[in-house]
Amino acid sequence: MASGRPTDMRSEGTVSPEAFLELGRQVLANQPFSVLLGAELLSLSPGRCELGLALTPQLRQQHGFAHGGVVSYLADNALTYAGGTAMQVPVVTSEFKVNYLRPAVGERLVARAEAVHHGKSQAVCRCDVYAVQADGQEKLCAVAQGTIAALPASTSQAG
Amino acid sequence: MASGRPTDMRSEGTVSPEAFLELGRQVLANQPFSVLLGAELLSLSPGRCELGLALTPQLRQQHGFAHGGVVSYLADNALTYAGGTAMQVPVVTSEFKVNYLRPAVGERLVARAEAVHHGKSQAVCRCDVYAVQADGQEKLCAVAQGTIAALPASTSQAG
Amino acid sequence: MASGRPTDMRSEGTVSPEAFLELGRQVLANQPFSVLLGAELLSLSPGRCELGLALTPQLRQQHGFAHGGVVSYLADNALTYAGGTAMQVPVVTSEFKVNYLRPAVGERLVARAEAVHHGKSQAVCRCDVYAVQADGQEKLCAVAQGTIAALPASTSQAG
Amino acid sequence: MASGRPTDMRSEGTVSPEAFLELGRQVLANQPFSVLLGAELLSLSPGRCELGLALTPQLRQQHGFAHGGVVSYLADNALTYAGGTAMQVPVVTSEFKVNYLRPAVGERLVARAEAVHHGKSQAVCRCDVYAVQADGQEKLCAVAQGTIAALPASTSQAG
Repeated sequence: MASGRPTDMRSEGTVSPEAFLELGRQVLANQPFSVLLGAELLSLSPGRCELGLALTPQLRQQHGFAHGGVVSYLADNALTYAGGTAMQVPVVTSEFKVNYLRPAVGERLVARAEAVHHGKSQAVCRCDVYAVQADGQEKLCAVAQGTIAALPASTSQAG
Repeated sequence: MASGRPTDMRSEGTVSPEAFLELGRQVLANQPFSVLLGAELLSLSPGRCELGLALTPQLRQQHGFAHGGVVSYLADNALTYAGGTAMQVPVVTSEFKVNYLRPAVGERLVARAEAVHHGKSQAVCRCDVYAVQADGQEKLCAVAQGTIAALPASTSQAG
Repeated sequence: MASGRPTDMRSEGTVSPEAFLELGRQVLANQPFSVLLGAELLSLSPGRCELGLALTPQLRQQHGFAHGGVVSYLADNALTYAGGTAMQVPVVTSEFKVNYLRPAVGERLVARAEAVHHGKSQAVCRCDVYAVQADGQEKLCAVAQGTIAALPASTSQAG
Repeated sequence: MASGRPTDMRSEGTVSPEAFLELGRQVLANQPFSVLLGAELLSLSPGRCELGLALTPQLRQQHGFAHGGVVSYLADNALTYAGGTAMQVPVVTSEFKVNYLRPAVGERLVARAEAVHHGKSQAVCRCDVYAVQADGQEKLCAVAQGTIAALPASTSQAG
């Protein structure tokens, strides 16, 4: 079971919150697809993350709102960070579900995810995706829930 | 409930299979995000579609497989086409769920979706996503299931 | 799209919180399956509900924890109440997803659901299911997310 | 991650199809909740199963169709059998999603599930639930998709 996004958030010993966030940003910078979409890691702590992106024209539809695929990318990746930092082992998304609530219209999207439970082999996480307006107002536009799986030891060496 | 991808596959009277596919391709060409990812509509008939894309470097990870967000984009959009062509009204994705089965390694991805049931207001669809190898061999890498909703009459005029 | 559980929580004018809860309990009392499982509506307000049941032997497994089907029944029905009271029209569950987190061991189960968004035709709701221990301690054992759909006017007269 | 339904379908060496089905029926007979609902295992082979039940009055609603909780129980348990027999190790349902398509009206329900992919630690399965009419006609009333997880070795000794 693998989504093709091994994310390794193992920390060697105790790291500062700043170093933890920086580590997360390096993971993101190594994902060409995340770079293509302009995703930015806004905050990160064990079991929680905030991931955003600017709604540039190429991510919008002809009517000005974000393509659903952009919303689900953001939800999926935020879930992965929440699960990966909760377990602090290399992980992949095993599965997730998203409900779209309203058209994602705004300047930016922000996804906030948290792990609601985790064991050694997997974490179950939830995510809210907000469309941020020019005046800073946030509107909830999607909610997601999914399973983040720890990579088996042998796989994680390759990943 | 809207994913921001109103897809209008209303056909005026009877159209040929070729015209139906061409209509679907025009819808895709109007989605900047689909253009960005290089999605191609390979086949289309009422309640069924086949959507593919080439796994270019920007859609891959450092280890050579597709980002999960690419896989879920393709599944989501294929579900929308299957539901939209089953109901033949403007639609949006209401919700979907995806299970990733294995890393999506290959030259291309192909998603095949079909509507398993539809009424006037929504369709429930399933989708299989395959990674196509250089030799043409296909490996199932994800399965999805979701709800495609007809846009209300007033909304569809705007969308 | 119908789960076979039309739930009509239309209130005629303003009702007291007590009358609202009583109305909800009458709906539950008319569901033979809910009576069979011993479900009790613990609290109810627009967009929120709390539904519980005692883990009697027939709802347990040989190892003493609740059958997953009991957990998913409770989540599903709690989602329906949350959505139905948010929209205050007759509703059915359209779809839902549940992640099981740990074996549901305890004296009772309690599901708490809320509508995170609703329009005229549907509500998206989330639910947490807890296993309540003999000492009153609660352990989160499942999380769910789903869509509750308003019944079309003609159907609701029949349902 | 556990739904509280450890299902052990390990077979010692090669067993006949009849013995395999009989083994599956013993598992079901040990689930008080399945006995309460009157579930019957109709067929079973590695990665596939058919599970049914009679729509007795206590499983119906006031309007004569099955409670959604009955439909989701059947889908969930069928998914578990499909995954458990695919992997042939003790398993639990990790998560699943169900879409209700139409009211489940009829004499019986039959769920047919199959594993679409499995590895050592989990299987992803799909299920169709049909309402069977008095004349034998079947109507698709729900579709489900979920993950069945192998129990860790230590847990499986207890389960």
